[in-house]
Amino acid sequence: MKEFFDCLKCKECGRSYPKEALHVCEFDFGPLEATYHYHKIKKYVSRQMIESGPYSMWRYEPFLPLEEEPTVGLHTGMTPLLDAKRLAKILGVKALYIKNDTVNFPTLSFKDRVVSVALSRAKELHYEVVSCASTGNLANSLAAHAAANGFKSYVLIPADLEPAKVIGSLVYNTRVIGIKGSYDKVNRLCSEIAGKYRWAFVNVNFRPYYAEGSKTMGFEILEQMGWKIPDHTVICMASGSLLTKIDKAYQEAILCGLVEEKPYAIHGAQASGCNPITAAFKKGTDLIRPIANPNTIAKSLAIGTPADGYYAIQTIRRTGGYAEDVTDQEIIEGIKILAETEGVFAETAGGVTVGCAKKLIQKGYIPQESQVVLCITGNGLKTAEVLKDHLNPIDVIDPYIQDFDKIVDFEK
Amino acid sequence: MKEFFDCLKCKECGRSYPKEALHVCEFDFGPLEATYHYHKIKKYVSRQMIESGPYSMWRYEPFLPLEEEPTVGLHTGMTPLLDAKRLAKILGVKALYIKNDTVNFPTLSFKDRVVSVALSRAKELHYEVVSCASTGNLANSLAAHAAANGFKSYVLIPADLEPAKVIGSLVYNTRVIGIKGSYDKVNRLCSEIAGKYRWAFVNVNFRPYYAEGSKTMGFEILEQMGWKIPDHTVICMASGSLLTKIDKAYQEAILCGLVEEKPYAIHGAQASGCNPITAAFKKGTDLIRPIANPNTIAKSLAIGTPADGYYAIQTIRRTGGYAEDVTDQEIIEGIKILAETEGVFAETAGGVTVGCAKKLIQKGYIPQESQVVLCITGNGLKTAEVLKDHLNPIDVIDPYIQDFDKIVDFEK
Repeated sequence: MKEFFDCLKCKECGRSYPKEALHVCEFDFGPLEATYHYHKIKKYVSRQMIESGPYSMWRYEPFLPLEEEPTVGLHTGMTPLLDAKRLAKILGVKALYIKNDTVNFPTLSFKDRVVSVALSRAKELHYEVVSCASTGNLANSLAAHAAANGFKSYVLIPADLEPAKVIGSLVYNTRVIGIKGSYDKVNRLCSEIAGKYRWAFVNVNFRPYYAEGSKTMGFEILEQMGWKIPDHTVICMASGSLLTKIDKAYQEAILCGLVEEKPYAIHGAQASGCNPITAAFKKGTDLIRPIANPNTIAKSLAIGTPADGYYAIQTIRRTGGYAEDVTDQEIIEGIKILAETEGVFAETAGGVTVGCAKKLIQKGYIPQESQVVLCITGNGLKTAEVLKDHLNPIDVIDPYIQDFDKIVDFEK
Repeated sequence: MKEFFDCLKCKECGRSYPKEALHVCEFDFGPLEATYHYHKIKKYVSRQMIESGPYSMWRYEPFLPLEEEPTVGLHTGMTPLLDAKRLAKILGVKALYIKNDTVNFPTLSFKDRVVSVALSRAKELHYEVVSCASTGNLANSLAAHAAANGFKSYVLIPADLEPAKVIGSLVYNTRVIGIKGSYDKVNRLCSEIAGKYRWAFVNVNFRPYYAEGSKTMGFEILEQMGWKIPDHTVICMASGSLLTKIDKAYQEAILCGLVEEKPYAIHGAQASGCNPITAAFKKGTDLIRPIANPNTIAKSLAIGTPADGYYAIQTIRRTGGYAEDVTDQEIIEGIKILAETEGVFAETAGGVTVGCAKKLIQKGYIPQESQVVLCITGNGLKTAEVLKDHLNPIDVIDPYIQDFDKIVDFEK
C-alpha cells in the first residue's frame, strides 16, 4: 500500500505537506487533504481484486492514507445495503436503498470507519494518547477502538448529550469530559488542546486521515449497487465532511476504472434547528452563517460552524443535488417510517435523512423514476428517548388468555 | 435446498412428523427437532462452496429447515470473530476469541438468526401473523423482521423489561403486550394463545424451525476459526437452546466433512439469580428445579423453567464441559472487562459469559494452554442502565483550556 499515498495538500492553494499530524495550510489556512498516486492505484485495483479482499472497509485500503497495513478496526465496514422496496413505495420512488451503518462494528455508526483510519495512522506516527471533539457517535467509536488497541483516550462532548451516548463511551474506560456549551465550543477548545498536548485528535490534527475513512461508505455503495453509481445519494450533514467524501469516493472510482462515469446527484440533509449548510444553499450563497444556538433533537448533527460546509455546498451544486432540512417532528416521522417499513432503527440523524429524502421526492428534486441511496449513519438505541411520547403505549395485562382475548378481539 | 430438509422428529422417541407448525410429540410430549438427509448434504457442501456463498448466515442454508429460498433476514449473521488478545492475557488463557453478535443485523443480537429462519418458514406455510414470548431481544428481532416483511406481529414480554428493549420493539409498530409476572408466565400464556389463534409463534409452534437458526452461530465460529473446532466454547443459557444448537452445528460439520473430529468442551453460563441449569449440573442431576422468582440483572437469561435445560446438561456432560454462574456484581465486571480490553459493549448476558469464562479458567475447567471462544449474544446499549453506578463519572467543565489543564495535569 505504501506507494499509493502521496502527501497532504491544501485544498485551496494545492501546496504539499508531509504525511504528519497536520491539518491546516500555513499560508491560507485551507484544510489539508490526503492525495494519492492515482495512476498507480488504477494499475493495481480491479473489481475482482477488491471483491476478493477482506469483508470489511479495508478492501479499499489502496484509497486510504496509511503507510503500513491497517491495525485498528479490522472488522469495520461492509455494512448491508438494503433493497428498501416497502419504503420506496411509500416515498413514491422507483428504487430505494438503505446503506445501513446502524450495525457497523464496533459502535453502530459510520464513525467507526473514520476512527479506524485515524487510529491506524496514529499508531504509524507513534501517538499514545488519542482524543476527539464529538457529538456522541465519534466519542463512542474512539473510546472503543482506543480500548481495543491500547491507546489512552479522552473524549470531549457537549455536557447535555443523550445518556446512551455518554454510557456508550464511559464503558470503555475512556475519560469523558463534558463541556458546558455547544459542540462548536467543544471543537474550539480541542483545537487549543491539540496545540498544547502531543495527542492525536482524530478530528483536529488527524482530520486529513480521519476524514478519508468516510470514503469507504461511498465505495461500498458502488460495489453493493453492482459497481454502479446511484442516480441520487442522500447524506446527512453535520460538518459536511461525509457528503464530500462519498462524492470523492465516487470520483476516485471513476478515475480508477471501477465504475463508469455517469450523471449523479448528491443531496444534503440537515435538521431545521441547525441548518447552516442547507440555509446557505437555499439562499444561493457559499457563505455559511454560523448557528450560535442549535436547537434540534438531532444532536449528532448540531454543528453550528460546519468545517466542510463550503465544500459540501460545492459538491451538491456541481452534481445537481439539493439541500433540504426537516423539523424535529419530521425527524421522528422519518425514524418511524424507516423502522415500520424496513425494520431498521436509526438514530435522529437517520430520521433527518429519511425526512429530507421524502421532501426531495415530493418536490421533484429526486424524480420518481430514479434510483436513490439513503446513508443511514447511526443506531436508534443511542437516541431512543426522543421517541418516548411518539409510540403506541404497551398494553399491560395479567397472564390469562381471557385478558389477552380482550386486547386482540377487535382486531381479529 | 428442498431435498435436504427431511422432517420433524421427536427428540425422545424418534417418531416422525410432517414439516408443519408442530413442536411437541403427541405420544411422549418430547420436543420436535428438524432432521436432514445428511448424506445428501455431505455430497453437496464443501468449505469452498460455503466460502463463496453470501456473506450472511444463509451460506449455511443447506443445514436450515426451509423448503424454498430464504426470504427473511438476508443480511443477518456472519458477525465478526475477534481475536481477543488483550482479554486472553487478563483471563490467563493462550487464545481467546469473541463471537460478536452485538453487531448482528438488524437488531444487535443472536435472535436475529433464529427469527430469520422462523419467519422464512412462516412465509412458506402462509402465516400472516407472527408472535413470540420474549425477554426482550427476541421481541426486538421479531418486530423488526416482521416490519420489513409485511407480517402483523404481537410480542409478549414480562412487563418490567429494560426500557431500551421496549422502545426497541415499539418503534417497528408491533403490538407490545407486557405481562404481569415472570417470563415463564408469559411463555405459558403464549402456549395457550398458540393453541387458539392461527399465528406463527416463533418459539412455540415454530420452535423447531426457530431453534435451528442458532446453529449458524456455531458454523460461523468453525469457518472463522479456519475450519477448526475450538477446544472450548462458552455459551450463556436462558432456555439452553443456543448451547445445544452450537453443539449440533459442530456435530453436523464433522458429519459432513467440513471439520475434523476432535475433542471439544461446551460450557454453559448462567446468572446466579436464575441458575436452574447450572444448579442441576453442579448437583450432578438431570432434574432441573424451576426458579419461581428469578432475580438478576441479566433479564434476557431469566427463564426459571428452561425448555432445553435437560438437553443442555447432556451436551455439557458429553463434551466434558462445565456449567458455571455469576453474581450481578460479576456480570457488571464481565461487561466492563470486555469493553475495556476489546472495545465490545455487551449486554448483561455477555457479562455472564465473560464472568463465567473467567471462573472456568481460574478453576481449571478451561486449561491455560487452550483456545476458547466466547459467544457474546447481545448489545450493551439495550441494558445500559445497569452500569449507571459502576462507571467513572464524567467531568463537566467550562470551555477553557485552563479548566481542561486542571483535569489532565496530574495525569501527564
